[in-house]
Amino acid sequence: MAFDTEQEPGMTESVAPETRGFRLNHCMLRIKDPERALAFYSQVFGMRLLRRLDFPELEFSLYFLARLEDGKTPPEDESQRTEWTFNQEGILELTHNWGTEKQADFSYHDGNSEPQGFGHICFSVPDLDVAVRWLDDNQVPFVKRPDEGGLKDVAFVTDPDGYWIEVIEPARLSGMGRR
Amino acid sequence: MAFDTEQEPGMTESVAPETRGFRLNHCMLRIKDPERALAFYSQVFGMRLLRRLDFPELEFSLYFLARLEDGKTPPEDESQRTEWTFNQEGILELTHNWGTEKQADFSYHDGNSEPQGFGHICFSVPDLDVAVRWLDDNQVPFVKRPDEGGLKDVAFVTDPDGYWIEVIEPARLSGMGRR
Repeated sequence: MAFDTEQEPGMTESVAPETRGFRLNHCMLRIKDPERALAFYSQVFGMRLLRRLDFPELEFSLYFLARLEDGKTPPEDESQRTEWTFNQEGILELTHNWGTEKQADFSYHDGNSEPQGFGHICFSVPDLDVAVRWLDDNQVPFVKRPDEGGLKDVAFVTDPDGYWIEVIEPARLSGMGRR
Repeated sequence: MAFDTEQEPGMTESVAPETRGFRLNHCMLRIKDPERALAFYSQVFGMRLLRRLDFPELEFSLYFLARLEDGKTPPEDESQRTEWTFNQEGILELTHNWGTEKQADFSYHDGNSEPQGFGHICFSVPDLDVAVRWLDDNQVPFVKRPDEGGLKDVAFVTDPDGYWIEVIEPARLSGMGRR
């Protein structure tokens, strides 16, 4: 039998047909200030806003962001674009609970200090050195530069809410974590 | 000019060329017990393990999971597969700090109780009613069924660590959150 994927205790041997068409659509983070977050993710990571959805009765808005390369174009019609957005993979959803941007002492929990849980999102980049210069040019705060700490060639920066963003160059990590 | 994407305060008008090739590779969650988490994500959501990486000196392991449809096949060679994994989009990374699985009272924070931050991951599915039956067949705990609460046609379940997973059917949400 040809190589499939890795087997570890717990993994099913095959994929149940009941899961056909399931897609990992997004990961959601709450943000304090949408203007600040959109400025960061569009400027620094080149993300585009696929869709903003408002829920006035629940007093929140959702922002769905993605990298749009490979000529992907969302439909102009709003209903079609909403459906298209939910059919994608690997989107970043930002949730804004209205009013938090006006509370001076309001902040969200990044998941890396206690209590821990969520860790980070990660962008892979074609050239880590070039990306680090770009992040510095944009005054993005580093948690860890590629040559610091135990994990070489892995950088961590923070977004305006303090969430960690890992930045890696795949070709430089091919020997990582081998058994 | 043709429709591009949505403009909101903060969004740059265009994508900086310095971000070419950037990919949103993954979202990372810490898990207590890898066998339990892998059993859940492979059985219930049909995910495959692209790569496990071990860091003995730091006492943790990483598990990179993805849906593999559309005939995508990771390379068999381990180094190539690591690099291939980091070149994908929309992967789920699970981090296991060794030994937590043996601590009876150990658990991670889901981000939805205080202090809030990370919210959930989301799978889109072809048919929400069929997916709900599948989730029930697998005894997956619901936070919210599609007909409960303010957001109709949106389900939330929990994974074995208590992280929330949203489950949606894109075609049923096309009118959602319109201004």
